Amino acid sequence: MRNFKLTVRYDGTDFFGWQTQPGRRTVQETLEKAFVEITHEGRVRLNCSGRTDSGVHAVGQVANVFSATKLPCDTLLRAVNAKLPADVCVRELVEVPQSFCANKDAVRKTYRYVIQDGRVQDPFLRKYAWFVRQPLDAAAMSRAGECLVGRHDFRCFETEWPNRLTSVRTVTHLSVNRFGECLWIDVEANGFLYNMVRAIAGSLVQVGRGFWPETQVAEVLKAMDRRLAGPTAPPEGLFLMRVTYPPLAA
Amino acid sequence: MRNFKLTVRYDGTDFFGWQTQPGRRTVQETLEKAFVEITHEGRVRLNCSGRTDSGVHAVGQVANVFSATKLPCDTLLRAVNAKLPADVCVRELVEVPQSFCANKDAVRKTYRYVIQDGRVQDPFLRKYAWFVRQPLDAAAMSRAGECLVGRHDFRCFETEWPNRLTSVRTVTHLSVNRFGECLWIDVEANGFLYNMVRAIAGSLVQVGRGFWPETQVAEVLKAMDRRLAGPTAPPEGLFLMRVTYPPLAA
Repeated sequence: MRNFKLTVRYDGTDFFGWQTQPGRRTVQETLEKAFVEITHEGRVRLNCSGRTDSGVHAVGQVANVFSATKLPCDTLLRAVNAKLPADVCVRELVEVPQSFCANKDAVRKTYRYVIQDGRVQDPFLRKYAWFVRQPLDAAAMSRAGECLVGRHDFRCFETEWPNRLTSVRTVTHLSVNRFGECLWIDVEANGFLYNMVRAIAGSLVQVGRGFWPETQVAEVLKAMDRRLAGPTAPPEGLFLMRVTYPPLAA
Repeated sequence: MRNFKLTVRYDGTDFFGWQTQPGRRTVQETLEKAFVEITHEGRVRLNCSGRTDSGVHAVGQVANVFSATKLPCDTLLRAVNAKLPADVCVRELVEVPQSFCANKDAVRKTYRYVIQDGRVQDPFLRKYAWFVRQPLDAAAMSRAGECLVGRHDFRCFETEWPNRLTSVRTVTHLSVNRFGECLWIDVEANGFLYNMVRAIAGSLVQVGRGFWPETQVAEVLKAMDRRLAGPTAPPEGLFLMRVTYPPLAA
């Protein structure tokens, strides 16, 4: 069997997230179906860096898949894309060592959360940003987010979920930048808890609206209590931008 | 009656263009319906700078409308937007002199035509760019387009249409710029013939593909024969960016 690493991009609007679920249109099932059609293998199983929720987008999701196909990578890439609907595509496809696992080998992920804070929702952003009618103070949000950089227990930003061994993660970058009516919250970490970026976005927006003092984000983090964090921001603003692997693994 | 100038933005994907047509969802009808609901006037008629075709987008379309409403502009703007579906919005609404006509007073319009020329169609661009699988030579397209700037008879780039008095227009700006896998063709003129930007885009792509020598665009222009121009590029790549009026008219 050969092992292939795929870089996948999708508009999450019309998908019920990554993971296969009976009766739902998901990214995983859509991709696996395309692979089965091309390789004529009975069952193909894609393994991704981390599933995304319903409505969440990906610019650079990474997955791997085992297959006995003899097709060269270039041909396989073109054939798979020819089978895929227009809201998902494989950007890159390379053969990797048998040991490569898109999930376990990921060392870093970057998410972007997009917010539009104009007076009127932009028709072009309605599926790709959280619309907040109130003008947000991006500088205050940026300062408030600084406390999240570093190694912390992020359980306050985790939606309830089957227990993980630990809720400690290391955030290596967090920035809030304004481009006209858009705010980008960029977060890079060695891993993310369930709904972590959306809970961080929801909390920073509390600061941006002036509902919370800037220092409150640090207090929420310290308190380790989900009920103190801001609301979970909606999925349409979230993009998985890229997943980083050690040079040897891929 | 008061006269209002509106700046309108719409995602053209799910509209059959601007102009009201029986049994079709159009931008004009959608806006007029929202105005009728708010002003309770039997009939409201929007007059735009120039209708856009089915599937064409607008970042800054301009229209004017007469109404006897007593509502302040700010209230009217908010009320109209509250009635509109998410794929169209009014960005600005100001009261203008009775004489203002969004169509006749327009002195300049700017269109952008967006092309994606990557190997794989980008899911996020599928409704907002023309996907050309072949890599395009943007520099050659830019040089080829230079001959279009100035006052010319553009009938070679006009799709057949009820005769206008003249097909002479003045293009004040034309540029082709690359941003990663995207090309932007920006065209500013004192007016446009039917499908003119899409025929120009189709012709420049012939150069970008290497099918035409750079000089051929100038020859097509000189020949004044539509059959010699490139194909009409698809609507999803076209954006009406802005309409300019003399300072006194608005």
